[in-house]
Amino acid sequence: MASLFGGVEGGGTHSRVVLVSGDGQILAETEGPCTNHWLIGSEKCLERIEQMVSEAKSKAGADPHVPLRSLGLSLSGGDQKDAISKLTQELQQRFPHLSQSYFITTDALGAMATATDRGGIVLISGTGSNCKLINPDGSEAGCGGWGHMMGDEGSAYWIAHQAVKMVFDCMDNLEAPPHDVGYVKQAMFDYFQVSDRMGLLTHLYRTFDKSKFAGFCQKLAEGAQAGEPLCCHLFAKAGEVLARHVVAVLPKVHTSLFLGELGLPIVCVGSVWNSWERMQAGFLGVLARARGAAPGQAFSRFSLLKLKRSSALGGARLGARSIGQALPLDYADNVDVFYTHVFEP
Amino acid sequence: MASLFGGVEGGGTHSRVVLVSGDGQILAETEGPCTNHWLIGSEKCLERIEQMVSEAKSKAGADPHVPLRSLGLSLSGGDQKDAISKLTQELQQRFPHLSQSYFITTDALGAMATATDRGGIVLISGTGSNCKLINPDGSEAGCGGWGHMMGDEGSAYWIAHQAVKMVFDCMDNLEAPPHDVGYVKQAMFDYFQVSDRMGLLTHLYRTFDKSKFAGFCQKLAEGAQAGEPLCCHLFAKAGEVLARHVVAVLPKVHTSLFLGELGLPIVCVGSVWNSWERMQAGFLGVLARARGAAPGQAFSRFSLLKLKRSSALGGARLGARSIGQALPLDYADNVDVFYTHVFEP
Repeated sequence: MASLFGGVEGGGTHSRVVLVSGDGQILAETEGPCTNHWLIGSEKCLERIEQMVSEAKSKAGADPHVPLRSLGLSLSGGDQKDAISKLTQELQQRFPHLSQSYFITTDALGAMATATDRGGIVLISGTGSNCKLINPDGSEAGCGGWGHMMGDEGSAYWIAHQAVKMVFDCMDNLEAPPHDVGYVKQAMFDYFQVSDRMGLLTHLYRTFDKSKFAGFCQKLAEGAQAGEPLCCHLFAKAGEVLARHVVAVLPKVHTSLFLGELGLPIVCVGSVWNSWERMQAGFLGVLARARGAAPGQAFSRFSLLKLKRSSALGGARLGARSIGQALPLDYADNVDVFYTHVFEP
Repeated sequence: MASLFGGVEGGGTHSRVVLVSGDGQILAETEGPCTNHWLIGSEKCLERIEQMVSEAKSKAGADPHVPLRSLGLSLSGGDQKDAISKLTQELQQRFPHLSQSYFITTDALGAMATATDRGGIVLISGTGSNCKLINPDGSEAGCGGWGHMMGDEGSAYWIAHQAVKMVFDCMDNLEAPPHDVGYVKQAMFDYFQVSDRMGLLTHLYRTFDKSKFAGFCQKLAEGAQAGEPLCCHLFAKAGEVLARHVVAVLPKVHTSLFLGELGLPIVCVGSVWNSWERMQAGFLGVLARARGAAPGQAFSRFSLLKLKRSSALGGARLGARSIGQALPLDYADNVDVFYTHVFEP
């Protein structure tokens, strides 16, 4: 069999692996659970990666003892240089049969490499959240991505947390909620299978599992879909704060990124974007106000793009590039433009 | 030696034990680290309690094999019935030599039992925060006390977290800080001994230690003391949110608690109260506004009380009471009134 190139998309809840041939054909895909090393520790992270890649090899009918040419990992939590070089080293030492070379990058850069090679903004709202600007010249700027203890604003974790906090504060008489909390309160007790707030504490401390906690967001998305006012409010707020991440990097955006037919391209990654319609008003409001505060900017339109393929594909591309191999990907096949907005002049 | 009664004050950072004779004399005191079972697990919590009490016995010259009559534990995190009855059972089974009987209550009730038997509000701002109203008839109401994942507003942890978050958000261009972050940023790098924000992540996740994180508040208190604007802002905010806890329980306060010479008594527990002068304006502002919103209330004055003795003493009293023994405590000896405010009529 010809040379194989692997890619990993490592999320806070799900992960994916793709194997690609040198001409850009996808030969196998596998799935697995969370591979964020901040959340599960590097030991478990390494094990899970080995398992998924081996499974993908056998799916592709490849010899498990023949290493891939390269494995490019696009990992949430893949931001810290020290941790990443340690992780890379361990992969090389422990799994020499898995791949000849390893390359680790962030989930944001992997997503961008899946969508385009011309740059733009990646706005992640999955289990956690993050925003990265990549300019055409390769220069970067970021906002967020510090995890649930220091933000994750607009993410599934954050939305779930905001909801639970509103119920607690309402019951404590500390803060009046913007809408009745009845629906959210019952949904919370049902989802966590507890009968009172004390019962919830173990989910916040002793048995805390970010992915499980963030999973409550799905119930809130269903509420928002049905028009439940507090759920709608939460998603509107998520839209606002996600837009504020875009506003934060706006001053660093290279002018050329504004000028394409789509305007500023924003690659939206993560399951919270499935509730875009409920976030839209909040999102647009913040961007319109930011534009009003800095008139005369080239920022006159933007488009939201969704990946049709796993960002494991971008990971594979970056991994291959790190050993001087260009994987031909048809970007148009990899993304959908699901929303374009043109501001009033 | 005559009968001995023990008390434990279990905080998120420090703990204390007192041994008291039947006539209310303090015979020995010992200190130890955190005994919050949510933070350290019940195993460590039990061990530390055994160790401190045994040490206190030997300090008092008592036979270590002769159990105390009762041990009353006033524990932060001592709110959940299931966990508490399990902890009580384990103490009885594993340490029958330590005490004949065990009684566990919250840090708030232990503090109140140290200060008075007439009721009032306990407002804790130490590592974490909590507010409990105890009416003269024994009825209770609470606000907060859910730990750092769901609030702890106004606590040392919360102040430290707010400070760090402001630095992160400023550097991300996500949120403009109310004052320059230069001082707080440098203090943060110094305290956590890191050179950038990435270095701080381990303190928030892998090696998270609430007490250590909250300890950064001490540096901010020093800044506020020196008039540093952002530090002053943080403590004013802490004053506001702590006052909002009082406002939350105000509707449940029995009228008689307003009518004493001191007005509504608020027992202030925890080291954040050492910065009262920096919190005062925020605290008073919120209470004055709440009073304005509900005119005609009996709430015309309040006093802030500080314990001169460990709330281990109140724990000992409640432990003794649980076996039908009244420990005579001179309440006046146990508290200082450090502030009284009379609202304009």
